This record gives sequence, structure tokens and C-alpha cells, in this order.
Amino acid sequence: MQKIRVGIVGYGNLGKSTELGIRQNNDMELIGVFTRRDPASIHILTEGVKAYHIDDAINMTDKIDVMILCGGSMSDLPEQGPFFAGLFNTVDGFDTHAKIPEYYEAVDKKAKDSNHICVISSGWDPGMFSLNRLYANVILPEGNDYTFWGKGVSQGHSDAIRRIEGVKNAKQYTIPIESAIESVREGENPEFTTRQKHIRECFVVAKEEADRAQIEREIKTMPNYFAEYDTTVHFITEEELEKNHSGIPHGGFVIRSGKTGANNENTHIIEYSLKLDSNPDFTANVLLAYARAAYRLNKEGGSGAKTVFDIAPAYLSIKSNEELRQNLL
Amino acid sequence: MQKIRVGIVGYGNLGKSTELGIRQNNDMELIGVFTRRDPASIHILTEGVKAYHIDDAINMTDKIDVMILCGGSMSDLPEQGPFFAGLFNTVDGFDTHAKIPEYYEAVDKKAKDSNHICVISSGWDPGMFSLNRLYANVILPEGNDYTFWGKGVSQGHSDAIRRIEGVKNAKQYTIPIESAIESVREGENPEFTTRQKHIRECFVVAKEEADRAQIEREIKTMPNYFAEYDTTVHFITEEELEKNHSGIPHGGFVIRSGKTGANNENTHIIEYSLKLDSNPDFTANVLLAYARAAYRLNKEGGSGAKTVFDIAPAYLSIKSNEELRQNLL
Repeated sequence: MQKIRVGIVGYGNLGKSTELGIRQNNDMELIGVFTRRDPASIHILTEGVKAYHIDDAINMTDKIDVMILCGGSMSDLPEQGPFFAGLFNTVDGFDTHAKIPEYYEAVDKKAKDSNHICVISSGWDPGMFSLNRLYANVILPEGNDYTFWGKGVSQGHSDAIRRIEGVKNAKQYTIPIESAIESVREGENPEFTTRQKHIRECFVVAKEEADRAQIEREIKTMPNYFAEYDTTVHFITEEELEKNHSGIPHGGFVIRSGKTGANNENTHIIEYSLKLDSNPDFTANVLLAYARAAYRLNKEGGSGAKTVFDIAPAYLSIKSNEELRQNLL
Repeated sequence: MQKIRVGIVGYGNLGKSTELGIRQNNDMELIGVFTRRDPASIHILTEGVKAYHIDDAINMTDKIDVMILCGGSMSDLPEQGPFFAGLFNTVDGFDTHAKIPEYYEAVDKKAKDSNHICVISSGWDPGMFSLNRLYANVILPEGNDYTFWGKGVSQGHSDAIRRIEGVKNAKQYTIPIESAIESVREGENPEFTTRQKHIRECFVVAKEEADRAQIEREIKTMPNYFAEYDTTVHFITEEELEKNHSGIPHGGFVIRSGKTGANNENTHIIEYSLKLDSNPDFTANVLLAYARAAYRLNKEGGSGAKTVFDIAPAYLSIKSNEELRQNLL
């Protein structure tokens, strides 16, 4: 069997997880990792696989079937997404919700011109959570959607704390409020304020001379990030942070509560939840499943930007349609 | 906007729920209900809609876009599925898992010959549970699947009790064992015997002269149905059965527990659960979403039998692809 030849652009957390994920998919092989750093400075875990400068990718279009774009949504993907769509089938996890329509258009144009399939905004949110919102909405047209995130590490919030004067390091957990989830599960269709859905817990390493009370005040009053939430701040040592908070767990809940019946007398609850020890590992594995789909759709002659909404589930699986019907249906 | 013209074959619980579900989908209208009974004996809830004898459907191929087949999997669908596939786009909830491949082939041939799209085995299991098994398997190739059913009414088990001598009426609930679900959620990857996953609770109305101890014994030792489970039997009056057990609730849990990481050090739990006040209402609403997809796929020139695995999620929604990307992604 000819394996799907995969390239990785960007070798941060997500890129490294993608490399590991490929080992779980027998129909894939890693061809190369592409980086903006000096390739000689990169140590690739997979034996026999090299790091290349990102500018060399353009010379390897005949060696790679799908490129997994593992850069960030803020500054990397808006540029890399359309660029690589002109050269390869791609998959990315672009997650700036408000800019998805614009990003889709940019990638779609380049992908159609170059006859590639480019899956954007894959992962879990957007991605699996989006899929579950869609399926639940079509089944229960009359109802309410709820999304809770966590317990998990928010990189953006951790970064925001680190920018405060006197802070050496920090980790922030987003935690859904259990009683709020329970109320939704009971079909009570509650309306929540921001404060009623999630709390924020911060673990902060302060510099020796820092004013801790001032740091705590600055965190708790930071608009958009913390002011709208009940926030707790714990000061800990660098050693404690390393020992107890070095993981990148995440997860969450997508719940739809809907009504049916002649007089809306029947309540239905659809719930999808994730509990992830490693956010990047899980995200990478979703991207890889969509890489398989991108490869196959392109083999069938397809082109253009796609999202998880546009791809029939069978394309994601290594199993044949007959096997799927027999074993998973 | 031209509405999707829907027909219903069979006017039992599922047919009636389908009729109600159409009211929640603004792009659909009910054209007729088709029955093997005397149409004059059927009272259709929807004003202006008539009941027809099932043999009249053949004369209405130009009036109906999608036929929803609401008969049973045991004897109705094996005959009606292929028959109606030769005349209409169809959707059904064929749920005899072992016979799906054979049923697929029979429907596929007729649907291809007549240029129709026929979605088989839709609903929630098979259906939404199958989809979640597939998505979870492609994301976590190394892991274990768990499906729990309930708490809900099993029609088959209730019927089995009713066939025992001395039983006037009965209702059986399948109940998942909470500690088993918790163990799965904790990533313990347990192996279960049948008895460790579900219990069975029976509410029985006995005839006056009946030997209750004998009925209880017969239930608890019935092979395949009860012998492999811890079963409790409650004798109640017909009035109590009517008052407290007339609903048809159901639901369940599909959980996949998987590992990632360089040394499989990360555990991930994907859980999908349903809590349904009305099994037929929910099933009907799933069938209707797939009716929309069948209609659209056929408009695009598609034909043949399809399952939930073969249909891109966007086809299920009344919303445009642009709206979906903007609002649900």
C-alpha cells in the first residue's frame, strides 16, 4: 500500500504532537518538518526524517501528499494557509472564529486554482465541537445550545498574566461551573451570564521583589480576560509550577437541549464532551484524520477549501465502507 | 421556496412522531401517510393531509420528494426498503445490525437502477451513535469503545415478558450501571461482562389468577433477554403502569477512551450521550434531517443507498454553507 506522505509546517507543541500522531495511523508516513528556524537546530524524533527550512517546501510538491499546518492562528496561518494551499493539500486548525469566513475565501481561491483540497479550522473547537453543534441543531431545531470549556489550560490567558509586571511565569485554568452544566442537563434551558458558566484559576510565579497584592488586583480586573469572571489567584514557586502544572490538558462540553411533541412536552438532551490530557495531541489526531480525507477527496478530483461540515465521515477512516457498515454502524 | 414534499409509510409511534417533526422543519411539508390498514380508519393530525393505502404510493411518485419508512426492521423494512427505493428517495431506521450489509445491497441496487438516494439505518443507534463511534475511532486509533444504553424502554424485552403465561402487560427498562460508566470515564479501560454494564428492571401487570413467583422466575431465567443480567421484577396494577410507565424514554452513552503521546502517557475520553423523553420523536427528527440530505444529494444527481457515514454534515442543515461557517463552526 502506498502510504499518505505527510509534511508538518511548524515544530511547536502541535507540530510535535502531529509527528507522534502519524505513528498511530498505519497508512501515513512523515516526510519532513518545515520550520522558520535554522533546520540544523531542530531535533526530529522520527528516525530518518529531516527538518527543512520552510522556504524549501516549494521544491517538494511531488514528495508530499498533505501538509499539516501547525502554526498559530494569529499571525502564521493567515499567511501560510493561502500560501501552502497553492502548493499542497493542507489541513489546519485556524481558530479565530470571527475571521473564518475571510480565511475560508482566501484559502478556497488558492486551493481551487491549484487543484488542492485544503481543510481549514479542524481540531476540536472549531472542529469536533462544531460538528456536534451542527448535528444537534439539525436533529432538534427547537432548542438551545450550550458550550462549556475546561477544565483546561488557556494559553491566551496564561500569556496575559505573564505580561503583568512582576510575574515570572503563570498558568491559567478555565473551569466550567458544574451546577451550570447540571442545570442544562436537566433541561432547564437556563440563561447564563459569563460569570455563571466558568471560573478562572491562576497559578502565578512572582518575581522576588514583586508586589503580589498588586499582581492579583491586576489579574482580577483585567477586562475581557478576567474581570467578567470569578477568578482565584495562587502564588506558587517555579518548582511547583513545573511539577504540578506542566501539562496542557483541556476539554469541554457541547450540549443541546431541545423540545419535541404535539405540545413540546418532550425534552431531549444531546451532550458531547471531551476530557483531554493533552490538547495538542488530541488536536493533532483530528488534523491527521482530516488529512486522510483531504488526500482522498483530492484523488477523486476535488479541490477547494473544506471544513468539517463538508466532509462525509467515511473519508476519515482507514477502514473500507463495507467494514464501517459491518463494524461501526 | 419550494418545500421538500415528504411522505410517511406506516403510522405507528415513529410515523406519528415524524408527522410532528415535520412541523419543526420549515422547508418540509407532509403530503400523505401510507398505511396497510384501511385509510378511512386513520386519523391524521395534520389538517388537509390524507391517509392512503400503501398500494397507492406507486401513483404518487411525482408528488413526493422523500418517503420516510417508519415500519419495523423485523418484517416491514426488508420488503418495503427495496420496494420504495425503486420509486422514491427514502430514509429509514433499519436497525437489525447483523443484517445491515445484506439490506444495504438490496436497497442500493434498486436505488441506483431508479436514480434515487436511499438513506438506510438512520436514527440514533444505528445513526448518531454510529457516527460518534466512527469520529472517535479515527481521532483515537489506539483505544477502546464502550456503548451503554438507557435508561430507557426496550420494546423487545417488554414484548418478551408479555408473551409469558399469566402476564397481562409489561414494561422493561434497560439501565446502565453508573459505576461502570464512571470507570470508563476515568480512563481505566475496564473489560465488562454483560452483567456488569446494564441492569434490567421490569414492571409487570399479572392476571388475577397468575402465579407471580412463576412469572418472576420465567423472566429472570429467560436466555438472551434476562438470564445474563441482574433483573428486578415489580408487580403493579394496570393503572400504575398507565400512570407511571406510559412514556417511551431512552438514551445512552458512547464513550471512547484512547491514548496518545511518545509513551502513551496521555489519556483522552470522548463521550457522546443522549437523554430522550421520547425515543420515536428523537428518531423521527434524525430521519427528517437525513431526508433533507437525501433530497439534496439526489438533486445533485446522486443515487444509491447511503448511511450516515456517507453524508457530509452540511447536507443535513437548512442553513447555507456560509451561515454554517459563520455561526456554528
